[in-house]
Amino acid sequence: MDNYQVPHYSQRIEHVLDACLPSADTSPARLHEAMRYAALSPGKRVRPRLVYAAAEVLGVPVTKVDGAAAAIECIHAYSLVHDDLPAMDDDDLRRGRPTTHIAFDEATAILAGDGLQALAFEIVATHGGLDDAPAARAAQIATLAHAVGSRGMVGGQVLDMGAEGRDDVTTDDLEEIHNLKTGALLAACVTMAADAAEKLSLDQRAALDIFATRIGLAFQVRDDVLDIESSTEKLGKTQGADIAHHKATYPALLGLGEAKALAERLYTEATAALDIFDNAEPLRAIAAEIVKRDH
Amino acid sequence: MDNYQVPHYSQRIEHVLDACLPSADTSPARLHEAMRYAALSPGKRVRPRLVYAAAEVLGVPVTKVDGAAAAIECIHAYSLVHDDLPAMDDDDLRRGRPTTHIAFDEATAILAGDGLQALAFEIVATHGGLDDAPAARAAQIATLAHAVGSRGMVGGQVLDMGAEGRDDVTTDDLEEIHNLKTGALLAACVTMAADAAEKLSLDQRAALDIFATRIGLAFQVRDDVLDIESSTEKLGKTQGADIAHHKATYPALLGLGEAKALAERLYTEATAALDIFDNAEPLRAIAAEIVKRDH
Repeated sequence: MDNYQVPHYSQRIEHVLDACLPSADTSPARLHEAMRYAALSPGKRVRPRLVYAAAEVLGVPVTKVDGAAAAIECIHAYSLVHDDLPAMDDDDLRRGRPTTHIAFDEATAILAGDGLQALAFEIVATHGGLDDAPAARAAQIATLAHAVGSRGMVGGQVLDMGAEGRDDVTTDDLEEIHNLKTGALLAACVTMAADAAEKLSLDQRAALDIFATRIGLAFQVRDDVLDIESSTEKLGKTQGADIAHHKATYPALLGLGEAKALAERLYTEATAALDIFDNAEPLRAIAAEIVKRDH
Repeated sequence: MDNYQVPHYSQRIEHVLDACLPSADTSPARLHEAMRYAALSPGKRVRPRLVYAAAEVLGVPVTKVDGAAAAIECIHAYSLVHDDLPAMDDDDLRRGRPTTHIAFDEATAILAGDGLQALAFEIVATHGGLDDAPAARAAQIATLAHAVGSRGMVGGQVLDMGAEGRDDVTTDDLEEIHNLKTGALLAACVTMAADAAEKLSLDQRAALDIFATRIGLAFQVRDDVLDIESSTEKLGKTQGADIAHHKATYPALLGLGEAKALAERLYTEATAALDIFDNAEPLRAIAAEIVKRDH
């Protein structure tokens, strides 16, 4: 399918996300404005599209993953809001706009992040598409909670901060950081779709795990490369921020050429794992986009 | 039952909570230390005991609410950690010890709070006591998520901050603030037990709602009174902080005597609603403790 369109579900996710977020005039209005500002800001929506792509490959009806798609984007948005706080990365710019604590204030940003995390779980717990599948709903919530918690995304952020300024960070350390900080949520996109699948063989589960892990790490390696090669304008966030923060990155540890080769290798391994499925084109397309994106 | 022991479930909740929290040497160790510091700090555990009391009254096996009890205490702990941050209430002392951002650092405190919120949902989503009750599990998660989100606890915190320093706050405003900020989570304690009940009449549901709402508000009125009447030593947090922050409180709006009378009236209404149950002593005992506590 050479003409497969990657932004296949873009309209659907915008619609679902908008419908799941309380309106901007719901009390407290300022909080809901901030939550919508963070979650609906222009973005590539890679994660929700990954959810839909996995569902398509696994034959899961879209209605069973609408909640997962919206929830994961809420989690992603909350994590960016908190990461950008003065006590954390202290960033003013995100997706080409002022970060939430700049556009609003710090307290509102903290609480908007907290509210978005709660909303993510509320969405999965109540979304109508899973009304006849309570076990799938519970499984999706367990997957999401583990992926975003202290042994997942939040843990990765702590390790990432702890590595700042250190000059003894190894590639193993870096892999652990990114597997948690970025990889866990990307893997959850695929797993939450699998949680809603009627039946899945152990081989298929294993193949999805390999795909999700490799593509999650590839995403981060590409991010590191872009921080050097791209521009602030294209990235919508401050170019060169990693170097400014003395962050350990793949290009810093391996050199730029080796980092790019690593991303290619991870991409190849990820897509090879998909051979077990009859039609894995939707996931292959997202994988290609992740590794080849320029922002 | 004159000799009913209020701290009936204290040992159980300490044990369950300890078991649900990742150990302090789980990577990232510093994050898990901070999460344990916040969640296991000495406290009255009013909320989990309220969960167990409601379960007892409704004939729900304790194993079906162990997860809810631990989860709600994790949420409560996270909310305190974030409320105490410099950008929020900027408090140094909590439960007689340095607040989490003082004992650790601000970034770790933000992330420990985030991790505790995720853990709360993970606990309810995976706790073994609900393995044969996926619908009850999903209902508990929906109850919790709504109670702690932007239209519940987090929303109440935003309204509370917005009311600071204003001199036109009415008792209606104050009731809305506290129904969200404190009341929603206290009500969730009772509702999560009800979510796990085999059968419950509409009248019983309504009675529990009245009980939970009244006792939630009574809790806050008592808190406001204690901020004036108690001491920093007894409270384990800075006495007089409400006045220092120019917070609207019931004693400020109604006078101290009227505020105390209001707490009594709410207590009477709350316990009267329980008459529909055969034996509501466990809930009556907690209600009495809430309204009569001196710290």
